Order: sequence, then structure tokens, then C-alpha cells
Amino acid sequence: MNREHSVAADREQAVTDKVLASFAKTADPRLHEVMGSLVRHLHAFARDVRLTEREWETAIEFLTRAGHITDDRRQEFILLSDVLGLSMLTVAINEPKEPRATEATVFGPFYVDDAPEVPLGGDLARGAVGTPCYVSGRVLSVDGTPIGDAVLHVWGADDDGFYDVQYSDDHSAGRGWLRVAPDGSYRFWTVLPTPYPIPHDGPVGDLLTATGRGPMRPAHLHFKAVAPDHRTLITHIFVAGDPYLEDDAVFGVKDSLVTRAEHHSAGPAPDGSHQQEAWASMSFDLVLVPDGDR
Amino acid sequence: MNREHSVAADREQAVTDKVLASFAKTADPRLHEVMGSLVRHLHAFARDVRLTEREWETAIEFLTRAGHITDDRRQEFILLSDVLGLSMLTVAINEPKEPRATEATVFGPFYVDDAPEVPLGGDLARGAVGTPCYVSGRVLSVDGTPIGDAVLHVWGADDDGFYDVQYSDDHSAGRGWLRVAPDGSYRFWTVLPTPYPIPHDGPVGDLLTATGRGPMRPAHLHFKAVAPDHRTLITHIFVAGDPYLEDDAVFGVKDSLVTRAEHHSAGPAPDGSHQQEAWASMSFDLVLVPDGDR
Repeated sequence: MNREHSVAADREQAVTDKVLASFAKTADPRLHEVMGSLVRHLHAFARDVRLTEREWETAIEFLTRAGHITDDRRQEFILLSDVLGLSMLTVAINEPKEPRATEATVFGPFYVDDAPEVPLGGDLARGAVGTPCYVSGRVLSVDGTPIGDAVLHVWGADDDGFYDVQYSDDHSAGRGWLRVAPDGSYRFWTVLPTPYPIPHDGPVGDLLTATGRGPMRPAHLHFKAVAPDHRTLITHIFVAGDPYLEDDAVFGVKDSLVTRAEHHSAGPAPDGSHQQEAWASMSFDLVLVPDGDR
Repeated sequence: MNREHSVAADREQAVTDKVLASFAKTADPRLHEVMGSLVRHLHAFARDVRLTEREWETAIEFLTRAGHITDDRRQEFILLSDVLGLSMLTVAINEPKEPRATEATVFGPFYVDDAPEVPLGGDLARGAVGTPCYVSGRVLSVDGTPIGDAVLHVWGADDDGFYDVQYSDDHSAGRGWLRVAPDGSYRFWTVLPTPYPIPHDGPVGDLLTATGRGPMRPAHLHFKAVAPDHRTLITHIFVAGDPYLEDDAVFGVKDSLVTRAEHHSAGPAPDGSHQQEAWASMSFDLVLVPDGDR
């Protein structure tokens, strides 16, 4: 390192040192740790790439656009975290170590708090367009014990690849929550998921375009499984054979979550109903980790 | 590293590797470099602190609030970059190596594009409340040659510590631009700057509070000096003796930018005017680097 470089490096390190010192009076030790690490890594990034002032401005503009497109129905910061893999990395960091547990994946930006309760065996499509799909399985603890008091929250896109909140008319469809049966089993109707692009008309879409990446996600159905004395599981089930399984814009696919969708002609279904059109079925068990287990 | 840790580390590394690989088709090599480095450092941060899912949610909520408070008059993302020292680090990375040049500092969130032209020697306070302050100096190239065709953009807060854009009434005050004299000299009236808090009623203010940091900035006047064949200089002049010089919320102070403010009783001023009340004066030369110099 020649003298000029060394002067510049010292000047840059002095900025980082001053910022780190400014957090000395943080009362919460965890916040102190997180902010210190954030500043160290953020500054290391800027130094490593020799960030230009124009690039800094571009980043400010990007975040501003992301903030302005975000509202109750659109969450561009979650999309950003998703396409940068930060969401899946956070899932990986917090994943239970128990190998028998169902693996977790990204939460995504489309969950809503006030989805309706649907009776066991009911239809949560509620008008969402697509091939009717009968989904069933069991909720179990890692030792195989059924969890009879689990609650499942389920949400998915329609056949056009849109969640209800992506329409402008405020309707609710393709989502709901249900209580499982006392033997841990569950069943409901919805629509068969199809691949869809994440919202890509905003800054995150521009980033994907500029980096030669596609916006597609493989078909999937979201689950959030909540049960007393167990760790909440947030995951998807994916559909085997989907063309985007190896190319998920948000890196959410895990092999253990890929499930076969069986296709059926019009006729009787397992719940005794008679389907008037072609339908599909999927089956998947959700295995939860007791609280306190890692 | 035991086996369990090694499995977890491999799982986390696999996420990072997949994300890095996803940028392989980026057409612009610089964008490829920046995104790769960003992902590596962002992921290293999450891994180092073992980021929890609740903390990830807090970060998403923080950015969302920052986005929603940002508008044409409030720029929370610049404030965030400022209080994390990223702005000053970016300045340091891009600072000319020429030791005779005036040092740069943060741009800040309060510049506006459509400030009025003020004649040489005119008053850019235009109603801003405070002690009248006569500011003068020269704009020079590093070899001492006066730059007669430079333009200075100047902006500052009033005596209450507010910029015009922080008021809700849309008035413009305390800012303007002027052409320097053919001999490179400049002079104008404004109000004497005073220390003030950065806007701290939003998420950045909450972060400062949670980390035991104050929101104050030492008194300063912003300059942006633009001249043909020279690199644009963005800087402040600070007022000697200010109590916050060692404790600037945005780390912007450099010793070479600290200037004495002379205090005067009512009476004649250097421009031949007669001041009816106490006034102040500051003098500062701005030294620019020719284009192409580092």
C-alpha cells in the first residue's frame, strides 16, 4: 500500500470508527451488537466496491421508490429482501435443527391478518379462478404424534397468478384458516397453484431486469401452521414438475416441499362431493417442532 | 465446528451461493460487481448476528415507515444513510486526493433544485429569521488561480434550526445560488447558522433514541460549488466554538471546514450597508480540483 492509499484507507477507517463509537451508549446489548455489525458490513461493502456518489444517489432513489410503492397491499421491501436471498437466509439461520421437521420457506408479501375461517373440508378458493384442488394431510409433532389443536393458515394465487390483494376491488379469495381435526388431519378445497411472476412493475422488477433475472416463482401454496407448545411453521408446498423449481426468483424451493399434484376427471372426490369439472388433489403432512427444541 | 453446526453453515452458504449465481447474466459488469458485493456483505451481516425472524420483520417495518415519511420535503433514507455514516464514508471514498482542495462533506436531505438566483452581495435569507451574517471569500483552483465563472449554491437553516422546506407553508428562504465575481470572489448575506436537530420524529429519530444518540448537528452553512473544468464541491462551513462539533449526528465535521464567525454591533458593514442590528460575518475560500485530477 503506497502512502496515498494508506492516507485514504485511514480516512475511511476513521469514519467507520466514529460511527461505531457513537453506539456506545445503546442500552440494549442486542441492539448494540446488531447495529455495530450492520455498520461494519455496510461500510465494508461501500469500501470494497468503491461506491460512487452517483451510485449512492441511485440507492437512495431505489429505496424511495420502494417506499412509495409499498402500501397495505404491496410490500416492496419484502420483495427486495426476497430477491436478494436475505429472506431465505434468515429462514435458514432460524430453521430448527430437527431433521424430521417440515422445512420452512419464505413468508412472502401476500399474507393478510384478517382472512376468514373456513370449516374443515370447506372451500377457501371462495371465487378464485382455477382448477379445483383438494388438499389434505396431517399435522404431526416430530415424534409422529398428531397435533389435534393446530390451526392452518393457507393462502395462494389464482390461475392467473394473482393473489386477491393484487386486485383493486378489495375482494378476499384464495385464503383462509381452519382448525384441524382431533386426529391432526386436515382437508380443504382451493385452486391448483400455477407459476406466477412476483410484482415486477416497481424498483425490484427493474433490478431483476437489469441483472438479467426473471420474476417467476414456481407454483406453490402457502401454509402457516400454529399449534400450542410448538414452533410456528411458515412454509409452502410446491408442485412437482413445475418449470421454475430450479429458478425461483426468491430462492424458496426446498426438495422436501415439492409434492405431486394428482389430476382427475370430473366425478366423485374423496370428500363425497361430485366434481363437475376436472380437479386435482395434493397431499402433504406438516411436521412441527415442540417449543424449546432447536 | 461440530457436525450440526457444519450442516447449518453449509445450508446457509448454499443460499448465498444460489443468490450470487442468479446475477450471472447481468449485462453491466459494474452492476454485477456491486450486487455481488452487496449480497455477500448483507448475508455476512445476517449470519454474524444470527438475525432472528422478528428482527427481520423489524427491519422491514423500519424501511416501510422510512418510505412512507419520505416525500418531496422529507428524505428519511438520506437521514438513515447519514446517521449510519454511509454518507460520510461515500464522501471519503470519493474525496479528491489533492491535499490543497477544500474538503467535502455530506450533501444532506435539504437541498432543493429550484432555489432562486441571488445577485452577488444580495441577501439569500429572504425572510429566514436570525442574526444577519455576511459571508465572503474566493473560489480558487488548487494552484491558487481564481475561478471567475464559478456558481455557488448555498442553503442553511434559520435561527430556529429549520430549513424552509421543513415548514408547511411552501415558502422559500435561506437558500439561493449566485455567480461569483470575475476575480473569483463572492459575498452574500444570509442568517448566522445555529445548531439544530435532524428531523427525529420518524424511524431514524427512534433509532437514535434507542441507541442513546442525540439528533443534533453543529451550526453549518451548505455550499455546492460548480465551475467549468472543475469537480463539483459539496461541503459545509461550520462555526468555531459550536458545542456539537465533536458530536455531529451525521459525522460531517472536518477540522478544515470550521470557521470563525465574527460578531459585530449595529453599524457599517463591509458592503457599505448600515446594519440596524447586531450582525456577524464569516469568510471562507473554496478550493476546487480540476477535472481529471484525483
